Amino acid sequence: MRELVVGVDLGGTKILAGIADSNGNILGKKRILTPVGADPDHVLDVIVDYITELLRVYQVQKEEIRGVAVATPGPLSFPEGVVRNSPNLGWQRVNLKQELIRRTGRPIIVEKDTNMAVLGEYYFGRQRGCGDLLYITVSTGVGGGVVCAGELYRGHAGGAGEIGHMVVEAGGVTCNCGRQGCLEALASGNAIARRLDEMVKQGQGQGILTCTTPGEHPGPRELGMAARQGDKEARLLLSQVTDYLGIGIANLVNIFNPQAIILGGGMMLGLKDLLLEPVQNYVYEHIFSLNRDNLVVECTSLGDDIVLYGCVAAVMRERV
Amino acid sequence: MRELVVGVDLGGTKILAGIADSNGNILGKKRILTPVGADPDHVLDVIVDYITELLRVYQVQKEEIRGVAVATPGPLSFPEGVVRNSPNLGWQRVNLKQELIRRTGRPIIVEKDTNMAVLGEYYFGRQRGCGDLLYITVSTGVGGGVVCAGELYRGHAGGAGEIGHMVVEAGGVTCNCGRQGCLEALASGNAIARRLDEMVKQGQGQGILTCTTPGEHPGPRELGMAARQGDKEARLLLSQVTDYLGIGIANLVNIFNPQAIILGGGMMLGLKDLLLEPVQNYVYEHIFSLNRDNLVVECTSLGDDIVLYGCVAAVMRERV
Repeated sequence: MRELVVGVDLGGTKILAGIADSNGNILGKKRILTPVGADPDHVLDVIVDYITELLRVYQVQKEEIRGVAVATPGPLSFPEGVVRNSPNLGWQRVNLKQELIRRTGRPIIVEKDTNMAVLGEYYFGRQRGCGDLLYITVSTGVGGGVVCAGELYRGHAGGAGEIGHMVVEAGGVTCNCGRQGCLEALASGNAIARRLDEMVKQGQGQGILTCTTPGEHPGPRELGMAARQGDKEARLLLSQVTDYLGIGIANLVNIFNPQAIILGGGMMLGLKDLLLEPVQNYVYEHIFSLNRDNLVVECTSLGDDIVLYGCVAAVMRERV
Repeated sequence: MRELVVGVDLGGTKILAGIADSNGNILGKKRILTPVGADPDHVLDVIVDYITELLRVYQVQKEEIRGVAVATPGPLSFPEGVVRNSPNLGWQRVNLKQELIRRTGRPIIVEKDTNMAVLGEYYFGRQRGCGDLLYITVSTGVGGGVVCAGELYRGHAGGAGEIGHMVVEAGGVTCNCGRQGCLEALASGNAIARRLDEMVKQGQGQGILTCTTPGEHPGPRELGMAARQGDKEARLLLSQVTDYLGIGIANLVNIFNPQAIILGGGMMLGLKDLLLEPVQNYVYEHIFSLNRDNLVVECTSLGDDIVLYGCVAAVMRERV
């Protein structure tokens, strides 16, 4: 009999669900857009329908399911599984775990998406088994997951790893969270989109605009295209973003002394050719020599599926 | 028979050594200045002589000694116990643990001073037993010790907790470590002394100078005296320092989601009446609501002896 895991990666803009076996082989996956502006109840219904649909399409028998895991943007309380004031979802307080269990009638593992991702890396990535591991996602926002001494670190109530809201430029740009100069406000997809909008309004960024579909706003992808064509404004903006990412990551290296920093997220993976090497160089130059020994800074090999891999890991480790 | 612990707190400016029983009762302690500009060998000799002297004065029998622990400024590699590029000691690479063992002919526990301090708090402070605990020292420099899920967290090689070298103001004041805008460069005793020197050169800070012994440079103590007398420049500078400390601590709360942040160090304890409440307010206002639940931010009750308490804890836990 197959042993299968159902994983759901709930995001602010999309929902990715997949079925995998216990070795992390993803048998199938589907992606839909998160219903915009929908109330949490509706989103939860969509998730449950979606799981049912996946089970039907892949002809999964109930007894083959070893577990179901759902990843969600934080903050998420642990162990209760309550989403609290989530900027990405726009939810104030949703008892995600309890509501999913009520709807499905079965145990569900609920975990913050970045925590799930670091579990994915720890069990299935190139850095598997690396006991002091930080995962950093650079996407619409910036977030993190932490493995300390071989254990997922959630902090006292589940709120650990909010590294996107580390202020690295006191008095800087205002962040969605209300603080100023957060890493996320300076070096995320949203930050780049906002900066590009400002530039365009001021008549700058023409090279970047030529890479942008007319009528649309430029973002990290268009910035990358322009930079690869040698556009100077694009390269300058990218180097600023790189420096901020370098500052944030070097801070975390000096705080955690990890063995490996694993980078992921849509923006990071999409601009890997432009971002990774300068970020690595910045970090290696700005940390204590002790913390530099054998430090790995690299992009995940698990790509966009890292959270799904984490769902498999979360189910398997709970059942060990 | 008594069970005694010898603890040594080696600092850049002073060495504090003490003898305590296994319950953390300090029987006696002595403080001397760290030999200025001395080579590491001489400092190690001084430490060993000092331990011998303490044992003589307090008439300690060899068999009464349950253990000896030495705390040192970081970075300190673990488990080797090698001091690496320590800005406070001015040492490049000193095999502290091995050298102390060689000189004394007995096992010695060597730990970074901030790690020792957080152990002291965890075993003997008001927050004893608090499994997710951060200790932050604000003194000549800024440093930290981390307890995660009930365990001292040293990171991969002993370098964790260098929170003073978290950049919170990109492009800001240059730090001793070479980076710009580190918390330590903005909110430590050294940072205040440097800022006051600048002010005095520009003809400012007259109110602070009236609190300063003629011929000496003003520092945190003189700043505090002037602020308590209502001096406006002193209050403004203190409020800037408070904001930087608040930013740094709020960052750490969002990263670690601790149960308690314990503050110590000469500057923090000396200016507690001026710093603690504004720092608490800043932190509570700038963290995620989930991370604010039940969070304690307070000064240690162990005062200047927190590292000695940590030495006792380090010996006792190793022998459990």
